[in-house]
Amino acid sequence: MQCDLIIKGKYILPMDDKLTVIKNGFVAVLENKIVGLGAGDEIKNYQAKETIDVGNSIVMPGLVNTHTHAAMAYFRGLADDLPLDIWLNQHIWPAEAKYVNAEFVKQAGELACLEMIKAGVTTYNDMYFFGKSMAEPAIRAGLRALIGITILDFKNPTEGIGEAVSLAKQYKNNEFVKIILAPHAIYTCSKENLLKIKAVADAENMRLHIHVSETKKEVDDCLSAHGKTPVEYLDELEMLSDRLMAAHSVWLNDNDLEIYKNRGVKVAHCPISNMKLASGAAPLKRMLEMGITVGLGTDGAASNNTLDLFSDMRACALMHKVNNFDPTAISAKEVVKMATIGGAKVLGMDKEIGSLQAGKKADIITINLNKPHLAPVYNPYSHLVYCVSHDDVENVIVNGKVIMKNREVKTLDEEKILKRTSGFTV
Amino acid sequence: MQCDLIIKGKYILPMDDKLTVIKNGFVAVLENKIVGLGAGDEIKNYQAKETIDVGNSIVMPGLVNTHTHAAMAYFRGLADDLPLDIWLNQHIWPAEAKYVNAEFVKQAGELACLEMIKAGVTTYNDMYFFGKSMAEPAIRAGLRALIGITILDFKNPTEGIGEAVSLAKQYKNNEFVKIILAPHAIYTCSKENLLKIKAVADAENMRLHIHVSETKKEVDDCLSAHGKTPVEYLDELEMLSDRLMAAHSVWLNDNDLEIYKNRGVKVAHCPISNMKLASGAAPLKRMLEMGITVGLGTDGAASNNTLDLFSDMRACALMHKVNNFDPTAISAKEVVKMATIGGAKVLGMDKEIGSLQAGKKADIITINLNKPHLAPVYNPYSHLVYCVSHDDVENVIVNGKVIMKNREVKTLDEEKILKRTSGFTV
Repeated sequence: MQCDLIIKGKYILPMDDKLTVIKNGFVAVLENKIVGLGAGDEIKNYQAKETIDVGNSIVMPGLVNTHTHAAMAYFRGLADDLPLDIWLNQHIWPAEAKYVNAEFVKQAGELACLEMIKAGVTTYNDMYFFGKSMAEPAIRAGLRALIGITILDFKNPTEGIGEAVSLAKQYKNNEFVKIILAPHAIYTCSKENLLKIKAVADAENMRLHIHVSETKKEVDDCLSAHGKTPVEYLDELEMLSDRLMAAHSVWLNDNDLEIYKNRGVKVAHCPISNMKLASGAAPLKRMLEMGITVGLGTDGAASNNTLDLFSDMRACALMHKVNNFDPTAISAKEVVKMATIGGAKVLGMDKEIGSLQAGKKADIITINLNKPHLAPVYNPYSHLVYCVSHDDVENVIVNGKVIMKNREVKTLDEEKILKRTSGFTV
Repeated sequence: MQCDLIIKGKYILPMDDKLTVIKNGFVAVLENKIVGLGAGDEIKNYQAKETIDVGNSIVMPGLVNTHTHAAMAYFRGLADDLPLDIWLNQHIWPAEAKYVNAEFVKQAGELACLEMIKAGVTTYNDMYFFGKSMAEPAIRAGLRALIGITILDFKNPTEGIGEAVSLAKQYKNNEFVKIILAPHAIYTCSKENLLKIKAVADAENMRLHIHVSETKKEVDDCLSAHGKTPVEYLDELEMLSDRLMAAHSVWLNDNDLEIYKNRGVKVAHCPISNMKLASGAAPLKRMLEMGITVGLGTDGAASNNTLDLFSDMRACALMHKVNNFDPTAISAKEVVKMATIGGAKVLGMDKEIGSLQAGKKADIITINLNKPHLAPVYNPYSHLVYCVSHDDVENVIVNGKVIMKNREVKTLDEEKILKRTSGFTV
């Protein structure tokens, strides 16, 4: 059959259920979709306008970042190694109050998109303010994003909901962005506001993105105030469903885990952020054993300090091995699943993205293995988690379009963005 | 004054006691030594044959890798996510028995040196077999290395000592390598052999490099066999001194820590290896508080799986924060100290290397900050630990000689090494 693009490479990792590895294979793309993949002579069934032979490379689905605050890229490294309350109250929140406006969100969002493309992220789940300014960089960059309008009592309880509903209509048919509701957390949204948000989410069939049980303090405070854990409290409000994406979810007890499983709640696990802020280690092994859907998130660059999911993949495997005193805990394959098809499931997008499969959208990245730190290769999954760094991503394709070729980003002006960023000072 | 080379850059981090940051500064080099550093007009005091202006970069001492098995680079990713005994007995030791010979060690060592140069490591503490084959790649690469001849009862108890003594004489005046003794561990070296090794080390004034208290099992077994911890046992044998470098040192009790402090034992902390093999979290915070000298090590590429100290710096900060439930534990500055001057102290080389100071050897690296994941810059220490990846190292100078310029390694043939490596199969 005729197609637009063929990508040939040494290791095709479709991230299908069997975790197939196709050696010396190819992926064929027509318009914005994958139309076939295979190995050897099967390539003769396709006549492509363009063939990119990436040689000694891994070809795999684009990564899915399930929790971030993209525009916080401008606050990368602003304050580190501090207690959470000092970090938030004396550094992050004052900086946000002073600097964050529509233009800031657009400019910092462009920096974030640039960084994510160069690190192989093709879809991200954003949570911030100024929805239009959040959406525009993603569209310009050619990345897919869920744009979560953050809602807090002290800030925008009514306007936030209105903004989300209005923008959702505006971007209804957009290929790249979808507007969703992001109540910040149970400690920043009253019961009344949570219920309002839920009602709108139900009426408009919108996903919800919220921080849940990130710190022990959040759980202790909730137990004192409501006699329930944050998960139990949200369940009582009937907020929990398979449309709810719970970021962090570090401090979950047995009952919380059962509730997550029964309601089909999706989890955005953020290993580096949880380590850096000393929040704790989420019960990842148990969540996966119970069949709870988990993806990986970087969180914002103020608490990571990059948007590089490869670092989070590695941190995820390492953290849970040492935390469980078990080197078999959380294998490389499980981690790569979380960063791709798992993330797609968290975002409710697994019918479209997250694996290389005929009929799915062509969101594909290639990773160059011709590097000293990647030689020799015994197992591509192991390399992805324990060796590959974001700089090894060579080509990025989203919706059938090559948005980075040989590390040159085609959709954004890297030089201009870096120059503009260096002009931003706090 | 006349000098050979000036490196100019935006952030000079000399890693002196005050952790000075010289903005828009320079380092001046004459022959193999640093002759001065400063900022602004002070540069006019130096007339250089060559000036390298690295612009928006960090200029800092080369990194010191205090524990590795360089030649295991050929076993990178051979076996992962396995219990330690299966990993060792069914994968690593059989592969070593089958493949490791003098030629293997030389070739795999070249790959390791190439990887280390590209990751900004200028000095490493190696522990393996075939000492001449270990030394040659370091010399060819232009890297400094302590070459630890590994000694095990079942392998080379007498020959190993003889080899070390003989090679130590051969390389006595070599600028780059120094031969030392590396009894593998208390569970692989008998009391008699440890005492023989100690006697030779004392007579020849050689350093000792040994794995100590890496796993709980090692400690439990030692307690059963000797009624003492490995540290107490080694102390009884009078092995512990400021010439002994103890890798890992994960499972230390209060008395062990006191002994380390009193004897001046040096510690090679290996965060990624300890996490990946689920060995545990070393008491790093306490060691630093007690004034014990600690450097960072990658361990071998079979248990990391890279030789990238930037990844270990990040893992170190993250692991100890979450492990102590304290985001202030192990600050970025402390981590960078461990990776530079701390490592030099561990190796007994801090009079020569580890910081940028007039009179010290010119071992200098530069890190390019003109990257999306490194913008903006508020604090260069934070960036080094939480953002920089090995690919951001742009230039590497050892002993006054530029061995990597704009990421091109001058001393080794990258293409040839990668091609040869791809021909190695297990």
